[in-house]
Amino acid sequence: MNESATNLPKGQLTRMAIIDASLRLATQVGLEGLSIGAVAEMMNMSKSGVFAHFGSREALQQAVIHAYHLSFEANVFRPAMKQPRGLPRLRELMNRWLEQLGLEIDSGCIYVSGATEFDDRPGAVRDTLIESVNIWLLALRRAVQQSIEMGHLHPETNPRQMASELHGLALALHFEGRFLRDDEAMDRARRSVTQLLARHQITLEN
Amino acid sequence: MNESATNLPKGQLTRMAIIDASLRLATQVGLEGLSIGAVAEMMNMSKSGVFAHFGSREALQQAVIHAYHLSFEANVFRPAMKQPRGLPRLRELMNRWLEQLGLEIDSGCIYVSGATEFDDRPGAVRDTLIESVNIWLLALRRAVQQSIEMGHLHPETNPRQMASELHGLALALHFEGRFLRDDEAMDRARRSVTQLLARHQITLEN
Repeated sequence: MNESATNLPKGQLTRMAIIDASLRLATQVGLEGLSIGAVAEMMNMSKSGVFAHFGSREALQQAVIHAYHLSFEANVFRPAMKQPRGLPRLRELMNRWLEQLGLEIDSGCIYVSGATEFDDRPGAVRDTLIESVNIWLLALRRAVQQSIEMGHLHPETNPRQMASELHGLALALHFEGRFLRDDEAMDRARRSVTQLLARHQITLEN
Repeated sequence: MNESATNLPKGQLTRMAIIDASLRLATQVGLEGLSIGAVAEMMNMSKSGVFAHFGSREALQQAVIHAYHLSFEANVFRPAMKQPRGLPRLRELMNRWLEQLGLEIDSGCIYVSGATEFDDRPGAVRDTLIESVNIWLLALRRAVQQSIEMGHLHPETNPRQMASELHGLALALHFEGRFLRDDEAMDRARRSVTQLLARHQITLEN
């Protein structure tokens, strides 16, 4: 996206810069903490200038979720897809997710904060957030399913349950690393992920 | 607390009623969503009337955390302590925690929402919240440690890691049950907890 950014019309570049700034802000203060005013200040723009690009705070929030989704896809999902189908790909998905979670111990994560901000707040922002989270959890389940089909994981492995357990390890890492400032949270999470995958593995490989 | 409540001075009863209402509100809108104004409205009191009982919003937030802590202790921790030390107690802690989490799929949980609200907001409220969460996680680790000492769990079991894994299952249940409205989240969590404990168990008992 970046290499062609200079060929884009100025309005689109500004829009992208606003989304970038908004995403940085939202990871710290949450999607609900995102205000057109604060974003305008970060951008040295007028409120109406920011508003003109999105039309509503809700549309800006949705654009931020979409931007996070794209960066997650670029940093975690797509590189892992280059690994062979099955356990190598599942391992790479988890390694990259843990790396991303490591960064988010400092920055925050809009999926985690958004879940409690929007759990009883129906509307377009929640729908967008749920859709985005579900795409990731589905990708994780699919990687487990394929690992079973490739004969790398035991056939009695339940993909939904394993995906939830991996999700839980990620959430515990975020909670204990970021909120409780527990320096050992990452080591524990890595060990737990390795052991969880090894437990369901059929044969040694690599 | 309730049976002796009627013997308390009226000021203290009012204070308890305010905390009750505030806790109900905070589980839905978060500790940061808690405003003296909203609580006053729920209580049919003036803002200054509510304010007089606490002196600051921060003190009210801390009182709410303390009240949640006490109810968690009463519903989860203390009844489980009546079980024999070791695996029976650890199992009861988890059963009761899962029950509590089941209720919180509808109501919300100030530990989970508070973690993202206060992760980069230092101060007395965060300190109180962290202290309260850590008491629970420590109790969980101690129950694992005692299960090892009683010869119920393998000696190579790492209490911190097992406590984090159990914490992760709880967080995944809350996220997937409450935010994603996944009806199977509770069944998966129960299965995962049972399997996690069974994996580390040395001998069959009960």
